Amino acid sequence: MRSHYCGDLRSANIDETVTLCGWVDRRRDHGGVIFLDLRDRAGIVQVVFDPDTEEHFERADKVRSEYVLKVTGRVRARSEATVNPAMATGEIEVLGKQLEILNSAETPPFQLDEYTAVGEDVRLKYRYMDLRRHEMQERLIMRSRITSAVRNFLDAEGFLDIETPVLTRATPEGARDYLVPSRTHPGQFFALPQSPQLFKQLLMVSGFDRYYQIARCFRDEDLRADRQPEFTQIDIETAFLDQDAIMEITERMVRQLFGTVLDVDLGDIPHMTYAEAMDRFGSDRPDLRIALELVSLDDLMQQVDFKVFRGPADDLAGRVAALRVPGGATISRKEIDNYTSYVSVFGARGLAWIKVNDLAAGVEGLQSPILKFMPEAVVAEMMQRLGAADGDIIFFGADKVKVVNEALGALRVKVAEDQGLVADGWAPLWVVDFPMFEEDGEGGWTPLHHPFTAPACSVEALEASPGEALSKAYDLVLNGTELGGGSIRIHDQSMQQAVLRILGIDDEEAREKFGFLLDALKYGAPPHGGLAFGLDRIVMLMTGAQSIRDVIAFPKTQTAACVMTEAPSDVSARQLRELNIRLREKSADGIA
Amino acid sequence: MRSHYCGDLRSANIDETVTLCGWVDRRRDHGGVIFLDLRDRAGIVQVVFDPDTEEHFERADKVRSEYVLKVTGRVRARSEATVNPAMATGEIEVLGKQLEILNSAETPPFQLDEYTAVGEDVRLKYRYMDLRRHEMQERLIMRSRITSAVRNFLDAEGFLDIETPVLTRATPEGARDYLVPSRTHPGQFFALPQSPQLFKQLLMVSGFDRYYQIARCFRDEDLRADRQPEFTQIDIETAFLDQDAIMEITERMVRQLFGTVLDVDLGDIPHMTYAEAMDRFGSDRPDLRIALELVSLDDLMQQVDFKVFRGPADDLAGRVAALRVPGGATISRKEIDNYTSYVSVFGARGLAWIKVNDLAAGVEGLQSPILKFMPEAVVAEMMQRLGAADGDIIFFGADKVKVVNEALGALRVKVAEDQGLVADGWAPLWVVDFPMFEEDGEGGWTPLHHPFTAPACSVEALEASPGEALSKAYDLVLNGTELGGGSIRIHDQSMQQAVLRILGIDDEEAREKFGFLLDALKYGAPPHGGLAFGLDRIVMLMTGAQSIRDVIAFPKTQTAACVMTEAPSDVSARQLRELNIRLREKSADGIA
Repeated sequence: MRSHYCGDLRSANIDETVTLCGWVDRRRDHGGVIFLDLRDRAGIVQVVFDPDTEEHFERADKVRSEYVLKVTGRVRARSEATVNPAMATGEIEVLGKQLEILNSAETPPFQLDEYTAVGEDVRLKYRYMDLRRHEMQERLIMRSRITSAVRNFLDAEGFLDIETPVLTRATPEGARDYLVPSRTHPGQFFALPQSPQLFKQLLMVSGFDRYYQIARCFRDEDLRADRQPEFTQIDIETAFLDQDAIMEITERMVRQLFGTVLDVDLGDIPHMTYAEAMDRFGSDRPDLRIALELVSLDDLMQQVDFKVFRGPADDLAGRVAALRVPGGATISRKEIDNYTSYVSVFGARGLAWIKVNDLAAGVEGLQSPILKFMPEAVVAEMMQRLGAADGDIIFFGADKVKVVNEALGALRVKVAEDQGLVADGWAPLWVVDFPMFEEDGEGGWTPLHHPFTAPACSVEALEASPGEALSKAYDLVLNGTELGGGSIRIHDQSMQQAVLRILGIDDEEAREKFGFLLDALKYGAPPHGGLAFGLDRIVMLMTGAQSIRDVIAFPKTQTAACVMTEAPSDVSARQLRELNIRLREKSADGIA
Repeated sequence: MRSHYCGDLRSANIDETVTLCGWVDRRRDHGGVIFLDLRDRAGIVQVVFDPDTEEHFERADKVRSEYVLKVTGRVRARSEATVNPAMATGEIEVLGKQLEILNSAETPPFQLDEYTAVGEDVRLKYRYMDLRRHEMQERLIMRSRITSAVRNFLDAEGFLDIETPVLTRATPEGARDYLVPSRTHPGQFFALPQSPQLFKQLLMVSGFDRYYQIARCFRDEDLRADRQPEFTQIDIETAFLDQDAIMEITERMVRQLFGTVLDVDLGDIPHMTYAEAMDRFGSDRPDLRIALELVSLDDLMQQVDFKVFRGPADDLAGRVAALRVPGGATISRKEIDNYTSYVSVFGARGLAWIKVNDLAAGVEGLQSPILKFMPEAVVAEMMQRLGAADGDIIFFGADKVKVVNEALGALRVKVAEDQGLVADGWAPLWVVDFPMFEEDGEGGWTPLHHPFTAPACSVEALEASPGEALSKAYDLVLNGTELGGGSIRIHDQSMQQAVLRILGIDDEEAREKFGFLLDALKYGAPPHGGLAFGLDRIVMLMTGAQSIRDVIAFPKTQTAACVMTEAPSDVSARQLRELNIRLREKSADGIA
């Protein structure tokens, strides 16, 4: 129906007769003529109707916001006074000759340019209107370009796109499964996959060598701001490649993606061990755009009497660390109080601080409630170690290692954001050498990744000291967000059994949960490994969106509902009967 | 780890030192040396180990079928006597220098080259072994190439890949939904989508203009041979394109797909109306590789007394038609009996036939139990109309139109297959001008496609005679299989309401089922339409697979179960409680 997209017209089209289709973004009359801003997915162009077009002018007079039009006219230059440099099409306009109203529109539930005034629930209820906004169009168009760029790269590298089941068996990822009652097997249920993990490993056992899938995954968890019940993973697995080769190929993929879509060169991506990341940044996904670092003070604090510091300093499982914030001396007491309650969420029982007013004046030039507890020599040594300068503030964490890292790691990011200390640009990082296990708090071990992750050591070493063992896992972090992660998997039966033993998963449980994978390892499993990227997060980062809901066409709310379609919804008694289930009704005493 | 794929080595690689990784397809010792057929996804190559490689020879001696090896060696030409022209790598072999056993393998549950001897259930239980077979590798590799070719075409044409929800609301496709209990909304359920139909229409209302998605769809139906509970659709929707433009663009897509993947030029695809297809082939998806056609004899049979023919011939809702099978006079009475019971499935109460032995001899030269009921002149006229020739058999159908079309339409295909009358090659066809509605047998109407399909006439004409109205729907048929179909959708509210009225869907039911779509039509819905292709069927056709299960990596059995993962499976009482459901247990008298 159209000859051009509205948003694509430029000076080069002047004097061409064009036919456009789109929506009325705005209608104005001025000086006896009618101006229509016509919008399509490419953008907006101004169309002018003079009275001498007769019935077309009359129609133009009748149209309202969001009417759907087909317009034919001639492209002409705008007069110098009316050129609009803010618009891509701002040098030209279309002199309308013919106008056909393809559809009318009732007054929209909200004006597209006033979307911020309405709640997100209204935007989600009328999602088809919200998606007309330029910003939302751009985000979903970029999402499509991102998946396309990823696929092109992987296709070219010989990866095969293979689909794995959505109706499947519960997998051992650890989150809560969505379940689907089976009609043909009464009383039994499918689970929706939390990831294609086991299937992609089986595809390697099958010899497909290089697999990928842009796969929908499902987790029935209480939703945080950046989570959705269904999300999308760029899922990759390879055989006969070692960790370095897998990291190299996926690094090239991400670099090419940023190059193609954003014209950004991410450069060589540095590697950092998990231990170093925790030590310097208190996080296994450090945002390297922030120059602030944690500095360990355990040895120094073993010399003080101040119990709050001395205790953790003496404790092998404790840590005392400082975070120096240049220019932070201007932070008010009220703000410090806010930071104190912020870190309390991570279990920190306080937030000690020192403001550096005049370093040359020694302790006199410092301001802090804790100075009195520390010998001057310790303070001086500390200032030197921290590289303190006038105008700084120094925050302290002293507790179990985990608490200190989480509290100061989070504080580091928050203070940097508040104080404008986050540099522009992109800071990617590979984090490697993760521990295999962490303590589960009940004397046992849980896997840091999943039970199929290969350790970097022998069965003997693993069994001798599980807490020391490192895994062949790797995460790709960008600007403090985990883009993706993966590992070399265990392809050796005896190693798999050792790991399951350490995790306290007995044979029966293992067979029940993933016996088919254990079987598969018996029949010639190749060395294999892979990783998975969170597509939604990548799109968020690349579009600068603040919410995952802004990069998904039809997202769920935080209660896991769709306000547009009103899903979930009631179903009929017949459907329940066919599925061999009943609703659980509360009895009179409120106990189900 | 490898320098080459096994299956890629050719004479050009002679004298190169290569490193290969793969599975032992076969191991033989002969004349003091060991021959290993090493297999990867690209194919098989022969590796030879001489005793002078010492420990490597010893290892080669130990390996068994399906061991995983890494082999380094030198490519050399085979002696003329041992060249194997049946193998792509048959001109060369690799003289092994080093052998590393990457993993051993227990004796496989079945030998890969003897898979036909084991039941499909065994193949599905050990699917990761079954997938190692060359045939299965090729099918899934071709599936990946097909999706890639489709995506490349659509990306280049400006289509946006947009994901729609899997956890959603029941849609009105008419099949049974898979349901997912909501934990956060007790007593309510999501439905898995039978197609993204409503969402893709909303995306057009949102202005995305050109959408596609290779989308998983779900139907909880009793499974026929070519159905799966989850299947994959190439889903397409456009705005501002008319029927011809949509057919043109998708025809180019399919032609490019066949060109890229199979090097086949499908040529311009002919169009045929639904009415003509039913009349000539008794089917709306005729296999045009078969030259046989149905010929109507109603006018002739109005002249006979034979009630079996006369009744339907006089009935406006009846039909008498014949199917001439050249060379079919050799078909035995027993085979005719089999065909008779075959057509009875479609409601035909018999299968009259005439064998043409000697046309020149008149009625004397014909053989049939029904000749005695028909005047000679009618028989002569019929023979002429059918173009009968010596050696033919003619089958008859006489009943309601629907029964005759279904019975003779199916018989046409079956006889052609049995008699070797199916030509080689590809016979694509567009079927157009479908009726809007068909009678539901209870005095009402049901949609031939779905309630959002646009009619080719005005609201007034539609309401005046729903049974006469044609729709703007179109199906693409290939070799008798429906590859895909679609339609222009209704974008006009009053038309949508008229269609819902005719279907007997009242306002309340409409709002309950898809009120959000009706709302969306109010706020500026553009003219739009699209279609959906069944990816699994396309892959079946293009790979020549006989079963849909052979083109899906991890399919379900006919009872909708996965024998490998043992899904569906039992779940815990805790999970049921969280989801607010109970199992329905049979009471003592067997009533739930």
